Amino acid sequence: MADKHDKVMELALRRGFFWPSFEIYGGVSGFYDYGPLGATLKKKIEDKWREFYCVKEGYLEIFSPTIGPEEVFIASGHVESFVDPMVECKKCRTPFRADHLITSVLDIKLDGLSFKELEDLIREKRIKCPDCGGELSGVWSYNLMFKTHIGPGERKVGYLRPETAQNMFVLFNRLYSFYRKKLPFGVAQLGKAYRNEISPRQGLLRLREFSQAEVEIFVDPEDKTHKGFSSVANKKLRLLPRDGKEIIITAGDAVKKNIIAHELLAYQIILTQEFLLEIGIPSQKIRFRQHAQNEMAHYAADCWDAEVSTERFGWVEVVGIADRTCYDLESHEKESKTELKAFKQYSKPKKKKKEILIPNMRELGPRFKQMVGEIVNKINSIGDEGVRDFLESGFIEIEIMGQKIKLDERYLEVKYVEETITGEKITPHVIEPSYGIDRILYCMLETAYTERDNKVVLMLKKPLAPIEVAVFPLINKPQLNEVAKRIYDSLKNEGFYVTYDENDSIGRRYARVDEIGVPYAITVDFESLKDDMVTIRDRDTTKQFRVHIKDVSKIIKNLLKGEITIENI
Amino acid sequence: MADKHDKVMELALRRGFFWPSFEIYGGVSGFYDYGPLGATLKKKIEDKWREFYCVKEGYLEIFSPTIGPEEVFIASGHVESFVDPMVECKKCRTPFRADHLITSVLDIKLDGLSFKELEDLIREKRIKCPDCGGELSGVWSYNLMFKTHIGPGERKVGYLRPETAQNMFVLFNRLYSFYRKKLPFGVAQLGKAYRNEISPRQGLLRLREFSQAEVEIFVDPEDKTHKGFSSVANKKLRLLPRDGKEIIITAGDAVKKNIIAHELLAYQIILTQEFLLEIGIPSQKIRFRQHAQNEMAHYAADCWDAEVSTERFGWVEVVGIADRTCYDLESHEKESKTELKAFKQYSKPKKKKKEILIPNMRELGPRFKQMVGEIVNKINSIGDEGVRDFLESGFIEIEIMGQKIKLDERYLEVKYVEETITGEKITPHVIEPSYGIDRILYCMLETAYTERDNKVVLMLKKPLAPIEVAVFPLINKPQLNEVAKRIYDSLKNEGFYVTYDENDSIGRRYARVDEIGVPYAITVDFESLKDDMVTIRDRDTTKQFRVHIKDVSKIIKNLLKGEITIENI
Repeated sequence: MADKHDKVMELALRRGFFWPSFEIYGGVSGFYDYGPLGATLKKKIEDKWREFYCVKEGYLEIFSPTIGPEEVFIASGHVESFVDPMVECKKCRTPFRADHLITSVLDIKLDGLSFKELEDLIREKRIKCPDCGGELSGVWSYNLMFKTHIGPGERKVGYLRPETAQNMFVLFNRLYSFYRKKLPFGVAQLGKAYRNEISPRQGLLRLREFSQAEVEIFVDPEDKTHKGFSSVANKKLRLLPRDGKEIIITAGDAVKKNIIAHELLAYQIILTQEFLLEIGIPSQKIRFRQHAQNEMAHYAADCWDAEVSTERFGWVEVVGIADRTCYDLESHEKESKTELKAFKQYSKPKKKKKEILIPNMRELGPRFKQMVGEIVNKINSIGDEGVRDFLESGFIEIEIMGQKIKLDERYLEVKYVEETITGEKITPHVIEPSYGIDRILYCMLETAYTERDNKVVLMLKKPLAPIEVAVFPLINKPQLNEVAKRIYDSLKNEGFYVTYDENDSIGRRYARVDEIGVPYAITVDFESLKDDMVTIRDRDTTKQFRVHIKDVSKIIKNLLKGEITIENI
Repeated sequence: MADKHDKVMELALRRGFFWPSFEIYGGVSGFYDYGPLGATLKKKIEDKWREFYCVKEGYLEIFSPTIGPEEVFIASGHVESFVDPMVECKKCRTPFRADHLITSVLDIKLDGLSFKELEDLIREKRIKCPDCGGELSGVWSYNLMFKTHIGPGERKVGYLRPETAQNMFVLFNRLYSFYRKKLPFGVAQLGKAYRNEISPRQGLLRLREFSQAEVEIFVDPEDKTHKGFSSVANKKLRLLPRDGKEIIITAGDAVKKNIIAHELLAYQIILTQEFLLEIGIPSQKIRFRQHAQNEMAHYAADCWDAEVSTERFGWVEVVGIADRTCYDLESHEKESKTELKAFKQYSKPKKKKKEILIPNMRELGPRFKQMVGEIVNKINSIGDEGVRDFLESGFIEIEIMGQKIKLDERYLEVKYVEETITGEKITPHVIEPSYGIDRILYCMLETAYTERDNKVVLMLKKPLAPIEVAVFPLINKPQLNEVAKRIYDSLKNEGFYVTYDENDSIGRRYARVDEIGVPYAITVDFESLKDDMVTIRDRDTTKQFRVHIKDVSKIIKNLLKGEITIENI
């Protein structure tokens, strides 16, 4: 029997939410096209994300290239660590992801096993190729980045980015200046990211090319707070911490009890929960799972996944919220030899005693004559390290025009001075909420998919429906069509997403728009020609009520916003 | 001396419109990051494009993958024809684009020369490597697509799309069904496209990764009209047709005189002109140039470029408007062996005489006994071709349960019937306006860049400015800051793009926001605390006027929309 995944996919294909890509060429797994309805739904999800992060939180959006040179991903660790364990059938040459193959054959859950351990399991349990029964190869490391070359020839290797985040790290100095060199600040980016999966077979849940919406929040490592935390501290979360014992707890308590590492991470988890609720995922289908130590990405210190419950795939990760620490900035600093640091001003300047070296002119003059000027310059420019060397060894060695000169205590005096330090350079830490837009879209559809009297009703959260209003003449007659089209045009001009349909019975037209989640249908009948009133039908209750044509737009707007309900019009 | 390009680039870098990508790794030419201001400007251009094409024209938007399998680009012709002529220095190995090198050395314009002709020119004119003076290699063909592999190993070649258009052709059957199998219909897509240029050196004008906004309009080849054409027929265009003689002519006349091939193409040219005017490109900087026969892309039958005049680069193509005919659909049909056709209903059904075969039961019955039923079925299902064979040869051969049976005129009678044909299958033609978003953005900045009293004022079209309003306290005092921040918050909540600044003199703050094109600055002074009024300053005239705080939002909104001007507040 068809499960909900099958049903959603059937609806999506038939009505134009999305289609498997390149069908006429036999299809290529891991790629989907969004048709007109899916594209609008996707844009609405993205706009909602912008509303949450760019408008309310003030994280400014940037756009970066999807291709990057090799150096970026060497620094980020992706060249080395963004790999899957792979095996191949020795007979039919079909490649498999080793851990997924074992999971499906043995029906067990694996987490964080080494390649060696996977190989041992395959041998012990005598696992064979599921396609032809052939023997499997050893497990090897397969890099998930799409590789290409930039410019002519093969000299410059490039990769399609596996996450949008790296662009923001590479741009740190530019962004830090843009924000007038003050921490904390956050930068948002929504765009394509790529993972060259071995053999993706889960529709929108495992794509080789997907849309990611990430925010990188750069903070002082010693201040991982959020000014809005107190207003969300009492909100409850369903958490599955590393110990595997699910709890329901307030954000405030989760921080107090050290379950969530700090306020900023907890605030981001709450924000994600608010987002998922806002787009219509019910709270009982949302939980936050902490990554096990051996499961975390190579860059993360702590990571919580927002998971949504689905029928076929169980809990599915839709958002990852990670504390990436200083890992990325330090890695890029090292690889690029460019300083990527913020200046942290002390709340009050610190006084610090330090030693400096003073040239003893009485000894230097007679001994070095015309070279004295150069020597004094060298002494004055000796750094803290040079001074420490002198204190330890009793001499320093300098070089003047190729000549090495040893200066001992005869020539140098140590003097103590007090220095005022206003701050220090630090490498910011990064907190990152990372959204998988395609997965969220699928979960929305599955959640919204409902059957009523053997017909499909897509109960999408109303403001997110790709089409917001349908306008129908009750029957296909010129005088009714004319009024209906006028209403259609005026709603369209006001910016609503509207559809018009005059074919088939009114019942079939209601069914057609229920199926794609249109919240309200307006019907023009013969009465309308006399009293200037039309019927609005509510998708979820099928309740109908009559309103004046001149009020239609205001009422629909307020209904969509949730400012009125059909009960209190 | 710095020209306008240098000045725009300096401003863009300093204020965060865009930055060369991967600077900390030495940079990679042909890639740019959009900083916060550039990203917002880009989004506003894209939204304006959506308003024009998706909302007003009703071309629905879809999103497709940027990676495609090799077959798609073999069919489209890009594997063979999307190439540049390349030479390499034999000594220092630097690669050059042959035609660009010749153009820059000889200071002449080249169009559509063959590789052989370019090679001859290099030899004749003794052109050497501009970097080291070394001898140049022969000219060879360099494919501009970024190549990669899909899935493990190198078995499945993929390319990054060189245009978004191919996705829409491959999806034709899905889209045709979505539009209830009626022509014409149009599909829009805005997304990344890629060209692996040899050595791009023109900032945003020649990117290896760029944003393209394309519409594919599928039409009946015999009906290239547009229902809105009459309303634009009187609008004037500045055309540079293939003959090289620039003219100013109405769209209607251009079609009548056969300068522009048909109404639909002319309508799209007008629409593009309206778009460019709307975003602030002045009409004297816009022209439409027809491609020479040997300059057109391999798929186009006719193509007009919208060009914008720039200081350094002269006329720059920003939009291409092409009639791609049935080239693409036919190519994909052939390569994929999948029919990609529309059914064209005749305005009235046609009658057609045809022959059919009637079994002669009197002869068949006695001869074939219990096999007669099967034989009659076969005869009835014989197609037109079978009937023609019979008419030519006098017999047909059928197969029943592995036994071949020859049926001649004894067993079959020919009868003439009249058939009603309601329509026929056709391959639609495609008209395509293709926008280069990054180039448009650059042209907007260059056009808007103005100097006033030695200061930069970015006179962007006001509704497109990335920041729409600035709010300042006249001087940095708590009581003024508080009021200013309240105004800032309330404008932000209403959806305006706002900035707040309390540092430095008011003059310097005006200069800072003039430079990034903020149309209006609101200043709170000590009077404001008494009379609840604030000063609005207009960017372009520096005129100031006082308004009530409670009216600020309405006035700014109407000023941005152009519904009022500062003169008639």
